[in-house]
Amino acid sequence: MDERGIKKVKACNLAVCQMVVSDDKAANLKKAEKMIREAVREENADLVVLPEIFNGPYDVAVMQDSAEDEDGPTCRMLSTLAKELGIIIIGGSIAEKSGDNLYNTSFTFNEEGIRLGRHRKLHLYDVDIPGGISFQESAVVMPGNEITVFDTSVGRLGIAICYDIRFPELIRLMVLQGAEIIIIPAAFNTITGPDHWHETIKIRAVDNQVYMVAASPARNHASTYHAFGHSKIVDPWGTVMAEIDEKEGIISAKLDPERLKKVRMELPLLKHRREDLYNLG
Amino acid sequence: MDERGIKKVKACNLAVCQMVVSDDKAANLKKAEKMIREAVREENADLVVLPEIFNGPYDVAVMQDSAEDEDGPTCRMLSTLAKELGIIIIGGSIAEKSGDNLYNTSFTFNEEGIRLGRHRKLHLYDVDIPGGISFQESAVVMPGNEITVFDTSVGRLGIAICYDIRFPELIRLMVLQGAEIIIIPAAFNTITGPDHWHETIKIRAVDNQVYMVAASPARNHASTYHAFGHSKIVDPWGTVMAEIDEKEGIISAKLDPERLKKVRMELPLLKHRREDLYNLG
Repeated sequence: MDERGIKKVKACNLAVCQMVVSDDKAANLKKAEKMIREAVREENADLVVLPEIFNGPYDVAVMQDSAEDEDGPTCRMLSTLAKELGIIIIGGSIAEKSGDNLYNTSFTFNEEGIRLGRHRKLHLYDVDIPGGISFQESAVVMPGNEITVFDTSVGRLGIAICYDIRFPELIRLMVLQGAEIIIIPAAFNTITGPDHWHETIKIRAVDNQVYMVAASPARNHASTYHAFGHSKIVDPWGTVMAEIDEKEGIISAKLDPERLKKVRMELPLLKHRREDLYNLG
Repeated sequence: MDERGIKKVKACNLAVCQMVVSDDKAANLKKAEKMIREAVREENADLVVLPEIFNGPYDVAVMQDSAEDEDGPTCRMLSTLAKELGIIIIGGSIAEKSGDNLYNTSFTFNEEGIRLGRHRKLHLYDVDIPGGISFQESAVVMPGNEITVFDTSVGRLGIAICYDIRFPELIRLMVLQGAEIIIIPAAFNTITGPDHWHETIKIRAVDNQVYMVAASPARNHASTYHAFGHSKIVDPWGTVMAEIDEKEGIISAKLDPERLKKVRMELPLLKHRREDLYNLG
């Protein structure tokens, strides 16, 4: 803990399950469970991250149908599994039904199966690139209204979902609130992915001197949305610690609190901010 | 002009002179003049950018000695040349003496030789990377206190110097003030350059959907500070339009207002900012 009572990042093993997401929810939940168990067994993971919309297709035409509330089968599975395995699970995101509203929401469960955090995607993906991709997430999804930072046993986490990472203000605010590990369940596509994915993740890590963990689904050509894949874990200097191509698989890395401290000491970017000239609030 | 009276970016040719900077000020001024003339002759440049501290070595031990005020020989040369050639010159930066203070300052002159803008580096480079580089710019240089955005005949420019680019708030603020071309006279070194230079420039362009123009000195192994080089011009999608290695040379690119408009329409990042959640001022 630091002087403000914030839990500092701890040496721990962190894993990302880059899973193929199909149209079959039961199969997706089974796959997620299988990969989380494998991450614990093979990688000794203390914290496991799933991708954006991991329990059904990322397709605005069907998100309403596959939506659940936080007492639904997906959250129940995640909570039960987190408790059984004694790990933290960041459940990527799911289509969350809340009253009449639909959100793109990430739920996190701790080692007791208790829900620690809930992030509702803040920036909805509405783009229209002729000859590329057209997608109007806001046609069915409501935006969240809260920045999500919370303490866990391995350190203070910030959660943002996919398009949220495009907005440097958001990531900076999470870091100013003490987040030292930023988790991004995401599904960039094959248009924006090759052009922007790697460098955006790296520069958010470098600017903010934090660990960045980005979790994508594997590419599924049978799906209407072709995820870029390339899940990765980047350290506070921007060095890639683990990454994968577009296929299904698990990546993992050991977080090192000394590394974070060293980077912040040698190149003190966060101390050199000119708060007299710009203020973010 | 837009509805706020801001000059929108115009189709124009922009060039960067990546020059070798030596200890000899007269030789540096001569080299700068020669390369600017060449950029106009060979590349038909409407706007030419020089690197950070182009008239003397980037060495805190001698910056005081080579300092000038804005009526000194360096600014006189830049103003006269801009008028003679009928171009805009962004004079990289120089050690500027102002009363008892020393600043790292960029002066811009327009086609009439009139000074349009003055940017004093806001973030001073104080780092200590064992086995890498140790540099304490603030030991001799004072920080500026103003964000620099101004109109020119080719569009609204924002100017920041080297380490200033590390701070996403600054670049974002310049863009919110209407800058569509961001000019960065810079001298990253051979430690941070390979690790951070390319991606930082690219992601500032991508996040802010602006042209980024970064001008470095060529690498000079006879100097105490080894600049990374790799000057580059990047478009608002993050595509590299022109770049060079570490050696002396000129790069140029034609700015295209339609490209900027298209990127901002297809992926409307600046419109999707959640000003209800974060405010930068």
